[in-house]
Amino acid sequence: MKEAVLFAPGDMRIVEVDKPTPGPGEVLVQIKAVGICASDIHWLLDGRIGETIMTKPLILGHEFAGIIAEVGAGVTNVKPGDRVAVEPAVPCFKCDMCAEGEINICRNIKFCGTPPTDGALREYMVWQARLVEHIPDSVSLEEAAMLEPLAVGVYAVELAEPLQGKSVGVLGAGAIGLSILQAAKVAGCGRTLVTDLISERLALAKKLGADVTFDAHDAELGSSVKELTGGRGLDVVFEASGENDAMQQAIEMVRPGGVVVIGGIPYDDRINISASIARRKALNIRLLRRSKDTLKRSIDLLRDKKVDVASYVTHKYPLDQVVEAFETARTRKDGALRVVVEI
Amino acid sequence: MKEAVLFAPGDMRIVEVDKPTPGPGEVLVQIKAVGICASDIHWLLDGRIGETIMTKPLILGHEFAGIIAEVGAGVTNVKPGDRVAVEPAVPCFKCDMCAEGEINICRNIKFCGTPPTDGALREYMVWQARLVEHIPDSVSLEEAAMLEPLAVGVYAVELAEPLQGKSVGVLGAGAIGLSILQAAKVAGCGRTLVTDLISERLALAKKLGADVTFDAHDAELGSSVKELTGGRGLDVVFEASGENDAMQQAIEMVRPGGVVVIGGIPYDDRINISASIARRKALNIRLLRRSKDTLKRSIDLLRDKKVDVASYVTHKYPLDQVVEAFETARTRKDGALRVVVEI
Amino acid sequence: MKEAVLFAPGDMRIVEVDKPTPGPGEVLVQIKAVGICASDIHWLLDGRIGETIMTKPLILGHEFAGIIAEVGAGVTNVKPGDRVAVEPAVPCFKCDMCAEGEINICRNIKFCGTPPTDGALREYMVWQARLVEHIPDSVSLEEAAMLEPLAVGVYAVELAEPLQGKSVGVLGAGAIGLSILQAAKVAGCGRTLVTDLISERLALAKKLGADVTFDAHDAELGSSVKELTGGRGLDVVFEASGENDAMQQAIEMVRPGGVVVIGGIPYDDRINISASIARRKALNIRLLRRSKDTLKRSIDLLRDKKVDVASYVTHKYPLDQVVEAFETARTRKDGALRVVVEI
Amino acid sequence: MKEAVLFAPGDMRIVEVDKPTPGPGEVLVQIKAVGICASDIHWLLDGRIGETIMTKPLILGHEFAGIIAEVGAGVTNVKPGDRVAVEPAVPCFKCDMCAEGEINICRNIKFCGTPPTDGALREYMVWQARLVEHIPDSVSLEEAAMLEPLAVGVYAVELAEPLQGKSVGVLGAGAIGLSILQAAKVAGCGRTLVTDLISERLALAKKLGADVTFDAHDAELGSSVKELTGGRGLDVVFEASGENDAMQQAIEMVRPGGVVVIGGIPYDDRINISASIARRKALNIRLLRRSKDTLKRSIDLLRDKKVDVASYVTHKYPLDQVVEAFETARTRKDGALRVVVEI
Repeated sequence: MKEAVLFAPGDMRIVEVDKPTPGPGEVLVQIKAVGICASDIHWLLDGRIGETIMTKPLILGHEFAGIIAEVGAGVTNVKPGDRVAVEPAVPCFKCDMCAEGEINICRNIKFCGTPPTDGALREYMVWQARLVEHIPDSVSLEEAAMLEPLAVGVYAVELAEPLQGKSVGVLGAGAIGLSILQAAKVAGCGRTLVTDLISERLALAKKLGADVTFDAHDAELGSSVKELTGGRGLDVVFEASGENDAMQQAIEMVRPGGVVVIGGIPYDDRINISASIARRKALNIRLLRRSKDTLKRSIDLLRDKKVDVASYVTHKYPLDQVVEAFETARTRKDGALRVVVEI
Repeated sequence: MKEAVLFAPGDMRIVEVDKPTPGPGEVLVQIKAVGICASDIHWLLDGRIGETIMTKPLILGHEFAGIIAEVGAGVTNVKPGDRVAVEPAVPCFKCDMCAEGEINICRNIKFCGTPPTDGALREYMVWQARLVEHIPDSVSLEEAAMLEPLAVGVYAVELAEPLQGKSVGVLGAGAIGLSILQAAKVAGCGRTLVTDLISERLALAKKLGADVTFDAHDAELGSSVKELTGGRGLDVVFEASGENDAMQQAIEMVRPGGVVVIGGIPYDDRINISASIARRKALNIRLLRRSKDTLKRSIDLLRDKKVDVASYVTHKYPLDQVVEAFETARTRKDGALRVVVEI
Repeated sequence: MKEAVLFAPGDMRIVEVDKPTPGPGEVLVQIKAVGICASDIHWLLDGRIGETIMTKPLILGHEFAGIIAEVGAGVTNVKPGDRVAVEPAVPCFKCDMCAEGEINICRNIKFCGTPPTDGALREYMVWQARLVEHIPDSVSLEEAAMLEPLAVGVYAVELAEPLQGKSVGVLGAGAIGLSILQAAKVAGCGRTLVTDLISERLALAKKLGADVTFDAHDAELGSSVKELTGGRGLDVVFEASGENDAMQQAIEMVRPGGVVVIGGIPYDDRINISASIARRKALNIRLLRRSKDTLKRSIDLLRDKKVDVASYVTHKYPLDQVVEAFETARTRKDGALRVVVEI
Repeated sequence: MKEAVLFAPGDMRIVEVDKPTPGPGEVLVQIKAVGICASDIHWLLDGRIGETIMTKPLILGHEFAGIIAEVGAGVTNVKPGDRVAVEPAVPCFKCDMCAEGEINICRNIKFCGTPPTDGALREYMVWQARLVEHIPDSVSLEEAAMLEPLAVGVYAVELAEPLQGKSVGVLGAGAIGLSILQAAKVAGCGRTLVTDLISERLALAKKLGADVTFDAHDAELGSSVKELTGGRGLDVVFEASGENDAMQQAIEMVRPGGVVVIGGIPYDDRINISASIARRKALNIRLLRRSKDTLKRSIDLLRDKKVDVASYVTHKYPLDQVVEAFETARTRKDGALRVVVEI
């Protein structure tokens, strides 16, 4: 079988290896679709995110879906041929965080495609059986690969709930930002404003239900927020762009006593905001770390057609062209939003 | 009567004016004790805090207590001779924040000693009758002047509740930090760690119940946190120092999923933290803005001797020496913690 | 002008009186539509609800809308001719509950149509200007009269939020129950089950989005709940029927650790449930009291066509036939859901 | 070794059996002290609690402590000779409740001394190693046997947190009620009122910090609540008596918008309260089910001498006199509060 290995920053190549065999409680998944996320590009370019550093060759890919090829001993929840979405995080269930139910910040978490755990850019992979979920027939494998960013969006919204009737801003209209937008609408939020620097993304945000969209550098943005909210400011702002100035924008757009959820990964590793504004507004700032227990709910949202993730996928490449796929994702060329590698 | 007027940054002088008269629903308070807070020193030195700027002469002072001298028409809750604490904030009760009970972030709030509202560094002042509270005989007027920082500490703790059994760090052992420490202990917190740069303050923190105290620049601090918490990190960290590097310390000391409450006012108006640490820990950061509805509870704490604020007061000056009083407070000389102007 | 006066239990008659005049801060509302609620029928039949007793003649009616006929001095938010919904509750804004924002349980609340405050079954009434809200052109006055039960439903849902993805049961498909159903769906809930004893109401619940409906006495109900929830039990159950056995049903249908919201008014004034089931399930039981701050949000829901209240109105009567209107509402004949008196 | 077996309701006898051997991950505990709880008496008299029925001989006892006698393979947290408290509940960690962290309402929970799981009234028992906790030298084994009711009290308080400054009522001054009282004081509550029918218990409540104590049938109780709370009603009321009329008392004593926590087990299995009062007060009623994750915190409270549980133990009997021990506990004779069987 083939796999795409990142040997060092900038050096990703396809290699041939033997197909693995699932042990007890494990399944062999035939990977069919893998999305490329901004964090994958961080790894490709820098070999690190914050303090986590890649020290040996790594297979990227944590947004994916596939078909069960084999099951190990004792596996009863799936059988060969089943179409499945995959939970990419493996909590230890032993540390203090897991004991308190905070499995997304497990101290020993393994996360697909993050050192030292290999990801999904390969033809087959072994994973724990309890971390795969059936997907309905009406959901394509390509859509299922988008369940990971959707689950993150659903969890981001959970951090700010209840949202019923509240005005919401989303900074950044990538797959996470658009998932937040859609999940916020499912949660009954009021008016929504989305910003980005790419006009195609804003158009998609509009299609997916944003009441107002704005170029993130537009000088009218501040007055637009006032108008949308009757002078009040947005009740909740989600930062999902990773842009260095977006955090400051978020605290300027949110109302006093409002909530800011930070989901974007800034390139320079600093969050730098005006203390006096944040303090005078008595803000509540929540940092988003992956998702927790929202995969099944995300599958339900797809099944019930309450959200649209098919629109995220703008480009598809076969595994052999994985380098081109990453280049398209990195440069965002041709309006690229989510690039999917089909295997 | 005399009053201490700040005519411009650095220029505070005593002047003589006529004694005012209370209108309907108002009282004339004979001021007896006024504490000098870090924010007062900001005003004296810079004439501004963040975006709020002093544009005309101002009387400082928002931590104070006194005796009712006269009451206006319709006032029934107090009578001349009563000893009272004073709530320095006047919400409008009309804006959207007040309507939602968020009176501490009222959009039209008037706050004693913050432009354009004159404060308490004078012999007599008129205030709304409903904003004064009786103090028990067992509480001195000097202690009552410390009720304002105590109420802020009680409210800071409320932002992080429930605290039962949780480990707590407090960065900064000034009047706010020590009030947070004591209020957190009242709320049943577990182990406590306090840092500061001044050894007298750390000694006082110890006396008031801190389990461990540390110089904020001590290289052993990180390992001490680990030891105190069995490797887990502090459940909650309160930043009450305003030091530029304390915010980063706070996010390093707190455990994953923990709460950071920011109460200090940094001099350079930026909160600058490592995004990757904060995000990986999925922190909840709450910004503290004054207090809300905690004055009465603070009076009860003093009455029941559950907290000690008398220890905060290290220096006293008469009104005529108000400039010396501020100098002592600014330089923190002779172990100055809270300097009180007695009138 | 005419008004419908309840002189004693069972004795309601139309009388002629002078048209009142609005004072400062007040408006005169020309009443156009008044819904008849189950509590109105309680008053008509018994002259009491629980410990509140009618001791003098009373005008009923608290679900209503109309047109501004005159405005008193100082009124700026509305002008003659404006179409308005009316908030029927007048909190005192002085008691401890109001001070804490709990205005729906104000100790001195006046509520339209509840002794000793006259209600809306008359041609004109004076009300506080700040308690009326504009309604959009797209919303009829008849729909606007249904804003009161809708606001109660929205508030009931708020008591159980966040609801995203959670399974919900609603016992009773009257105007409150159907409003809860619709508000829960707006809040992003998962599967919904509605029960009632009247088949027309169940049909309407289905039309308004219930996934499953059931006769409340159907022996299959328990197994249906299990099937709908994969054996888990409902996450949240709202009791909105007032039936004596519904409370017990609610605790049987809800999952361990679930939430039960009690909105119905039982005729015999007792809530009687099995302690051992409720305790073993560690339930959270919340009692619903009117609504709090949800009128504007309810208007937005109507404006955005996220809910349908026009379907509630099955019968209309002119003011002269108010006794017949109550009889239809009481007997629920001809599938009566909400009977509206048009004036 | 000896064990006390309940063969049928009312028929408890000592029998001789072989000493068991711990398997992998298990320990053999030499039992030293076992408290007799009200639920044990329910089992002895009725052979059932609610829907749970004893269908074969059962060993009672779930409040206990002892000394490690042997450890099975792989056990590293304790060694022979260690003094330990024991968590009596064994969650499955597989059901939906466990997955959501609600381990106290695990669907497959095994609980020591509740059918079909034998309890601690025997000389030795095997238990899971991870469910025992070291106790400090300063804590006696008799006190350690009281950790179970203490942990329940700490958890009850958690259900009503934050309690800072709030007035608290506790109905019933048995071991649970007194633990609630003490835990509420640790959590910083304000004034406290305790009721019971036994004067010795009220005296102990007073000694343990209750501000006011009252005979539960005293006609002055209502006015005393008003006086204690300035007419407001108690913020939180904990029902820990199991008396049939106490639930109604609780809703009468609590303030509007207040919280009622129900911990007592009523004999007739019905909770029967006035709907109109509860509804008009918009109460929040929480049902208490055992404890969750509070054993370690309870050990810390004992270690730090923040609570006193030694006072609970009024009578001690050897294992041979277990029937007399139960008789004393049942009749509450000689001021019996907690009867401990020493082994």
